[in-house]
Amino acid sequence: MNLASMTAQVLQVIRRACRPLSKTDIASATGLSLSAVSEHVERLTSEKLILGASVGMSSGGRKPKLYTLNEKAGWIVAVELGTASVRVGISDFDCKILDYKSTPMVMNEGPKKTLTRVHELVEGMLDANGIEKRNVMGIGIGFPGPVEFATGLPVSPPIMPGWDQYPIREFWAQYFDCPCYVDNDVNIMAVGEHAKGLNFQVDNLIYIKIGTGIGAGIIVDGKLYRGINGSAGDIGHIDVGLKVDCWCGNRGCLEALAGGKAIAARAKQLAQEGKSDFLRDRLKLQGDLTAKDVGLGLQSLDSASIELIRESGDTIGRVLASLVNFTNPSLVLIGGGVAELGDILLASIRQGVYRRSLPLATRNLAINQSSLGKMAGLIGGAYMTIDQLISSRIDAPETAIIKS
Amino acid sequence: MNLASMTAQVLQVIRRACRPLSKTDIASATGLSLSAVSEHVERLTSEKLILGASVGMSSGGRKPKLYTLNEKAGWIVAVELGTASVRVGISDFDCKILDYKSTPMVMNEGPKKTLTRVHELVEGMLDANGIEKRNVMGIGIGFPGPVEFATGLPVSPPIMPGWDQYPIREFWAQYFDCPCYVDNDVNIMAVGEHAKGLNFQVDNLIYIKIGTGIGAGIIVDGKLYRGINGSAGDIGHIDVGLKVDCWCGNRGCLEALAGGKAIAARAKQLAQEGKSDFLRDRLKLQGDLTAKDVGLGLQSLDSASIELIRESGDTIGRVLASLVNFTNPSLVLIGGGVAELGDILLASIRQGVYRRSLPLATRNLAINQSSLGKMAGLIGGAYMTIDQLISSRIDAPETAIIKS
Repeated sequence: MNLASMTAQVLQVIRRACRPLSKTDIASATGLSLSAVSEHVERLTSEKLILGASVGMSSGGRKPKLYTLNEKAGWIVAVELGTASVRVGISDFDCKILDYKSTPMVMNEGPKKTLTRVHELVEGMLDANGIEKRNVMGIGIGFPGPVEFATGLPVSPPIMPGWDQYPIREFWAQYFDCPCYVDNDVNIMAVGEHAKGLNFQVDNLIYIKIGTGIGAGIIVDGKLYRGINGSAGDIGHIDVGLKVDCWCGNRGCLEALAGGKAIAARAKQLAQEGKSDFLRDRLKLQGDLTAKDVGLGLQSLDSASIELIRESGDTIGRVLASLVNFTNPSLVLIGGGVAELGDILLASIRQGVYRRSLPLATRNLAINQSSLGKMAGLIGGAYMTIDQLISSRIDAPETAIIKS
Repeated sequence: MNLASMTAQVLQVIRRACRPLSKTDIASATGLSLSAVSEHVERLTSEKLILGASVGMSSGGRKPKLYTLNEKAGWIVAVELGTASVRVGISDFDCKILDYKSTPMVMNEGPKKTLTRVHELVEGMLDANGIEKRNVMGIGIGFPGPVEFATGLPVSPPIMPGWDQYPIREFWAQYFDCPCYVDNDVNIMAVGEHAKGLNFQVDNLIYIKIGTGIGAGIIVDGKLYRGINGSAGDIGHIDVGLKVDCWCGNRGCLEALAGGKAIAARAKQLAQEGKSDFLRDRLKLQGDLTAKDVGLGLQSLDSASIELIRESGDTIGRVLASLVNFTNPSLVLIGGGVAELGDILLASIRQGVYRRSLPLATRNLAINQSSLGKMAGLIGGAYMTIDQLISSRIDAPETAIIKS
């Protein structure tokens, strides 16, 4: 390993730390000598990738200098593609979101049309914030389907015509002179929660996104686990043994029972059957229902809505119990649009997991609401991108992280 | 990292290679210089841990020397504790089993009684093979329940009174002056299959043991995955949604439907209901039935036995499909006593997995019979033990691997 590569590793250590680090901290984290650390720190400081400040505690003598990431080192564009909407954001070098925007967009219009509109959104947001394109260091994209991470190509995404193997990276290369990285959307959310959402150290977590569909992101030993085809965490079509048709052609899929689309369909049915005055009124008013209407039903204490969300949570909890028995994680995080409807869902999921998991597997298990909420995808997308920018320099040290 | 610790790492590289290695091979695998490799190789040769022979291909000059593990470097005692039987074996330093013995034994007689009898078996086997106790380098034990690997203590094993937190290592320390390591039995089998059962490289595999109960061992990125309480892979009590009582107090557990105990109970029921002449005759003859009788039924083309095994395989396949969707592995291995009954079980499991998994998750998935069969536990126990002997020297280089 040569000098520049080691410098990038020192940057990674500083970046991942929860607090500013002294040279002594860095030496003990990397196994380098203090004089070697000084050299790398000097280089990173002169490149403006880190900042030093004399605010540390002293044991008598001169206060030690503490180093942190320079969050102003450059900007990252983060994009979260969803099947029905897209979210675009700009983040600083420490994953703080400067600006973001969400807009309805239909992925099955095909990649070219969708990405062109996303690109317009991005350019508009950069302009509005006075950020020059050449100061964008990387683009991170979350895609709602399996992705071959090394190439950034979608792999057989269901119900999204035209996206299979579409070269998303090349699309962005037409407009931006910086790397673009693409990963599965739930993977990115899991990475974001793991890196920036928690104020404690967790090495094995499962992030469950409950939106229109249902997916999971898996962190094993502190690293994202993708599986051999990049489809790990694809839990939406796990068989829950009930006789409900799924759009995938199978029956009894988790998604067909407990996802946002399923909740909306079931709500409509309840409204039409006259089992909920609240839902019937909303259906009459709007002509259609979404999971959000069921959320409003919860707030209005509509018993049919409450029961519907309870059933949904119980089904998810039962599947989660299997995954908890299998992987014995320390944390399960529940995120996504449906998860934001309220605490009843979380309570039912917890109940399902605790009833059906082995006591030993849940001894140290916490099941919590996502802490980053709607922003998990953008923050995770930015984190993943910066990670890759630094890693690519560890692998190929001659490349600069920041264009000069 | 100091010299002795690096020497141990060189030993690990030689041991894990599928073929004899030249010094150049070792240098490129470890990143060490050729002269450093020479030094470590010389040390390992003088300690008789490796052997060198001039059999390599030459590119003109002198034939390069190739190095392999010295399988005669010492002996390992491997023990596989089962709920109803115990298997004891002696292995060489390359995990070849010299001798082994299996005997019925009931774990719920308590740890002291059981281990005393196992110890007698071990001493007898060492004597019979003319192996002196001081040449035993390590003892590896597979335990049929969760184990805290660092301490070797069983953690809340179900239906095994007296074993919770029992100091198994200390028991052996009374008789042997070498380290003892304890891990979950299915974990050890997965390790054995991964290291010694396959003639190809697989980094993500799930080993399923179908015996009296059902459990899984998980290899992620080439390493055994234990979960945070050591209970990862505990799939026997996953809910399959059917109304069958389980001994654990829950209903619809996988084990209560598809394990060996469940198969035996169902066979008895079929015999008593007059649904199988074959099973009825065996029940009359023996007074009871086991899963083995159903296996004999398969060989006699008894349709009730065939249907019973098919149902069992289908149930296991459905659960496996969920785990395959979740982890996207490249290999699933089916082992354990029930798995040895025949190909009908494997075919039904495969069918269940392929029907209910995402096509992408099974694109590169192989579902095979265990290749080590009954010996997986002993071979894996020996492998794990040698691994720990070498690792403990990497961590604490002053200790010798072999007592002098």
